[in-house]
Amino acid sequence: MKYTKNAVEQLEQRFRANLINGLSGYKSANLIGTVNSERQTNLAIVSSVVHLGANPPLVAIVFRPPTVPRHSYDNIINQQYFTINQVSDEFWQQAHQTSARYDGNECEFKAVGLTPQFTDEFKAPYVGESKIKYGVKLVEVMPIKHNGTQLVIGEIVEILLPEDIVGDDGYLDISKVNTVAISGLDTYHLPSKLGRLSYAKPDCKPKQIDVELPE
Amino acid sequence: MKYTKNAVEQLEQRFRANLINGLSGYKSANLIGTVNSERQTNLAIVSSVVHLGANPPLVAIVFRPPTVPRHSYDNIINQQYFTINQVSDEFWQQAHQTSARYDGNECEFKAVGLTPQFTDEFKAPYVGESKIKYGVKLVEVMPIKHNGTQLVIGEIVEILLPEDIVGDDGYLDISKVNTVAISGLDTYHLPSKLGRLSYAKPDCKPKQIDVELPE
Repeated sequence: MKYTKNAVEQLEQRFRANLINGLSGYKSANLIGTVNSERQTNLAIVSSVVHLGANPPLVAIVFRPPTVPRHSYDNIINQQYFTINQVSDEFWQQAHQTSARYDGNECEFKAVGLTPQFTDEFKAPYVGESKIKYGVKLVEVMPIKHNGTQLVIGEIVEILLPEDIVGDDGYLDISKVNTVAISGLDTYHLPSKLGRLSYAKPDCKPKQIDVELPE
Repeated sequence: MKYTKNAVEQLEQRFRANLINGLSGYKSANLIGTVNSERQTNLAIVSSVVHLGANPPLVAIVFRPPTVPRHSYDNIINQQYFTINQVSDEFWQQAHQTSARYDGNECEFKAVGLTPQFTDEFKAPYVGESKIKYGVKLVEVMPIKHNGTQLVIGEIVEILLPEDIVGDDGYLDISKVNTVAISGLDTYHLPSKLGRLSYAKPDCKPKQIDVELPE
């Protein structure tokens, strides 16, 4: 079937939100850990973490317009540091529950049953249960004028992960720690690997490549 | 294990690219269809399509710096229109092959064996084999100064998809058409649904919700 521009505009608001959210495909599932000036921690699930580049190591997150309280966004702006924690199949329901509108005095870690974890160098909290996580320093906030969202850009300054998922060429086997993916607004999936393909060249078909992971 | 900022900076370039690309989690797999002023089509796989908002329906794509020829980017800038086509497990290897550096006169559709498809209203080519695809009009290009990438923002103006994957609340069951996800630079995965969760509220646990799909 086909939706024209006009048909999309006339869709009921919630229907349109579900439909359009599904169009971009699978999205990453990550928990953002922050802290405010009173050292109170905050935790929020997002599906909008985007890889921006490896050198310097940059990520971005799309934040929605400030029509509701956004503790995570405010904490990032005020404190300049945050953590990004991949969500696995062991705690995807708890991760989803962080999207409830807890008031400013309630701690999502405690409310959903996840464990704050701190490193010496970094003041924002990690999620103890997450296997792949990293500390990020705010670099810039770019407002997107067409819909009032904000692109928060940060530099990765610390990475915590299990040694046995890093291949000899740096390839990160995220399927080994059961990282989940999101579709739409609220649906979680566990991906299975189809294969890794060699660098594509015009004159030959891509080959399946295997990576040496440490024993 | 822990990588400090200093350790990340000293990683060999390819190792760092693989490692950092894995940190953001699963990424969407999409083919971008474009055409140039001579009506020559171009097709390129990207893992950087991001949902920006549903009202207006906006998506963004991160394009790398212009150090190599970028036919897709140039065509988008010049022609203002492009298509985004979800990649499924039926043609993921062909989709990957579009990343080979074909010269400007070679058509990726023909080279990799995918079928260009046109609608009456839209001048950029869709991928015939793709089940979920949409036409996008360029809205803005935002340069990201920290690494020279470009955020291309577009508005969705036409959507093509099978009627039987749209739930009664607009939920799009992308797992039903076997859309794939990407990790790192070159690894493809087929996700299986864990579940859809109800809107989270502070005082109760999220429940699994089922969606009515048409027969």
